[in-house]
Amino acid sequence: MKKNYLLSPGPTPVPERVAAILGQPIPHHRTPEFEKIFAEVRENLRWIFQTKQEVIMLTATGTGAMDAAVANLFRRGDKIITINGGKFGERWTKIGQAFELGVLEIKLPPGEALDPAVLRALCAEHPDAKAIHFQASETSTGCQMPVKAIVDIAKHFNMLSVCDAITALGVFNLPMDEWGIDVLITGSQKAMMIPPGLAFIALSDRAWAATKSANLPKFYFDLPKELAAHKTNQTAWTPAISLIMGLNESLRMMKEEGIDALFARHALLAEATRNAVKALGLEILSKKSPSNAVTAVLVPPSLKDGKKIPKLMRDTYGVTIAGGQDELEGKIFRLSHFGYCGHFDITTGISCLELVLAELGHPVTFGTGVGAALKTFAHAGKKP
Amino acid sequence: MKKNYLLSPGPTPVPERVAAILGQPIPHHRTPEFEKIFAEVRENLRWIFQTKQEVIMLTATGTGAMDAAVANLFRRGDKIITINGGKFGERWTKIGQAFELGVLEIKLPPGEALDPAVLRALCAEHPDAKAIHFQASETSTGCQMPVKAIVDIAKHFNMLSVCDAITALGVFNLPMDEWGIDVLITGSQKAMMIPPGLAFIALSDRAWAATKSANLPKFYFDLPKELAAHKTNQTAWTPAISLIMGLNESLRMMKEEGIDALFARHALLAEATRNAVKALGLEILSKKSPSNAVTAVLVPPSLKDGKKIPKLMRDTYGVTIAGGQDELEGKIFRLSHFGYCGHFDITTGISCLELVLAELGHPVTFGTGVGAALKTFAHAGKKP
Repeated sequence: MKKNYLLSPGPTPVPERVAAILGQPIPHHRTPEFEKIFAEVRENLRWIFQTKQEVIMLTATGTGAMDAAVANLFRRGDKIITINGGKFGERWTKIGQAFELGVLEIKLPPGEALDPAVLRALCAEHPDAKAIHFQASETSTGCQMPVKAIVDIAKHFNMLSVCDAITALGVFNLPMDEWGIDVLITGSQKAMMIPPGLAFIALSDRAWAATKSANLPKFYFDLPKELAAHKTNQTAWTPAISLIMGLNESLRMMKEEGIDALFARHALLAEATRNAVKALGLEILSKKSPSNAVTAVLVPPSLKDGKKIPKLMRDTYGVTIAGGQDELEGKIFRLSHFGYCGHFDITTGISCLELVLAELGHPVTFGTGVGAALKTFAHAGKKP
Repeated sequence: MKKNYLLSPGPTPVPERVAAILGQPIPHHRTPEFEKIFAEVRENLRWIFQTKQEVIMLTATGTGAMDAAVANLFRRGDKIITINGGKFGERWTKIGQAFELGVLEIKLPPGEALDPAVLRALCAEHPDAKAIHFQASETSTGCQMPVKAIVDIAKHFNMLSVCDAITALGVFNLPMDEWGIDVLITGSQKAMMIPPGLAFIALSDRAWAATKSANLPKFYFDLPKELAAHKTNQTAWTPAISLIMGLNESLRMMKEEGIDALFARHALLAEATRNAVKALGLEILSKKSPSNAVTAVLVPPSLKDGKKIPKLMRDTYGVTIAGGQDELEGKIFRLSHFGYCGHFDITTGISCLELVLAELGHPVTFGTGVGAALKTFAHAGKKP
């Protein structure tokens, strides 16, 4: 009997309360029964997005909402700016190119956050660019981006701020309306704590206005059509009913916890993870701006094959973390600490890491990492 | 305690064996554990699609696969033919127009199947059209289309046959490779017996060849990218993991039943439904070519408000059937008989219909409809 633990940055573990709902008989979606669930979900999505706008639910994964953000906002030949801090920032560039937009990309070294001055200079050079596309948290490098600064620059230059918050929303504070974020996106299998299959996107008044003149071809991802449907507690196409039922429960859980407590929990779990990793003598990739969602750790130089760390953790111990992607493959591993995650998920992940590091020949005094995590928890005084 | 029964043409009921899986902990999708499930699903999808081609799974609902079929096959300015036998045929036209293709539409009166001669004439007039888009079963009218004849015409004129089989695949025989269907599409919440959130699309060699020169913009629905990923038991983007786990079980159930038995069961359930409805003195919308998936019944002229039939069935008795859509609203109601559906789902639906018709003042000798269904079953000699 090997127990399995999911410590990956998506999918994240599904709470038992939610799981119990996913196998229930589903109602037809054009019924008052489903519309009641849908109405509650809409209200609670507005709460977690911190917006008065409608949060559109798409039956797709996060990339579908990123596609929708581009397909619905622009006109042929428009110019956009993308901030490429890793695999997901690069995805903005690729989507822009797929729709044949003019893409100006700021490419950052892995783990480095954007320097707002660089963005400001590029905007000044290209004041005709329509939008700035970026990540709130770049999942591939565990780096948190200066969202507020980016949004302020976008406002200054009258551009739209289009924020992929797929591993950020519900993890740290992103007050959409207060900051004036124009487009905010997340996915279901992240802090929303349900299986993959739903993506979420909210638009500001400015962004909705842009959809009116947009002319890129689209059909399935038609946001104005979805907006009209959502207002009657419906979707344009058949939605992922069972996932929306699960989402209703996970949003209730988030509300029970409270938004401040939610962010504080994630900050504490992230801090404990970082302290544990450092106590083990390891280095964090994103030194200056580590994400509260996921911690990317450099493979110690003593280990030749970095891919062995996540592989052994999963295959021998049942603990699934993430390795590095693309050019970071074998060079980092990533410990996730968001969603349905508490104190003892952190100690589980670090315990397993200690065992595996020792097994691979890296010197470990057992308990060092876990001890540092526990100390962080005790010091914070915050009980689970 | 009101028990609920789902007799709608999608979502259809989820079998208990499948439901039990949907709430299980999900594995990460980039793991051997998930890849094993994925490999089995791929093989069984090829079986039910009756093809050697890869069946691509998209995290979307059926309309997403229809969108993908257009976005991946054509070049700007291409001309296509659509067969509009109702709401879903009309959707092909709308998608073609959304992508700014030249759309030649054959519009049929509700419930009427295509006359192949009409299609042949249109093709002869427009030999430069690239494809014929149609439904195998038009869900909005309960009409089955002459798929083989359409495919043969497409072949003759060197056009692609693009078949929306969303309420047909797994219901009646659509041997993709044998007939040479170029594109075959279905969705998860239909005969596949799982909740909505997955769409399926298979392409012939000719269709895959067309994707190579296609140049319409797309990103999330990139079929060649998905093909490459599927071959390694992966998807381009995070898939709807829990639904694929459920699908694995529902495909196993279909294989246990056997493909011939599957089609025979659906044929029998459809026949019993039609006989029951006729015995009640009601008329079927599609007289000459009724679908084995869903039976659309004309509201008797004696009843003023046809919308009351499905509403009363659902609200008073917990039996969800479908009403008419768009211009057929209030004029028909639709009894579904596919997916996880047996003898006593038919007798349940007809029993409820008898009660409601009587309640609305339509003369009913109780048992007439159900009796005709039972007689059909007894006569067929086929036990559930």
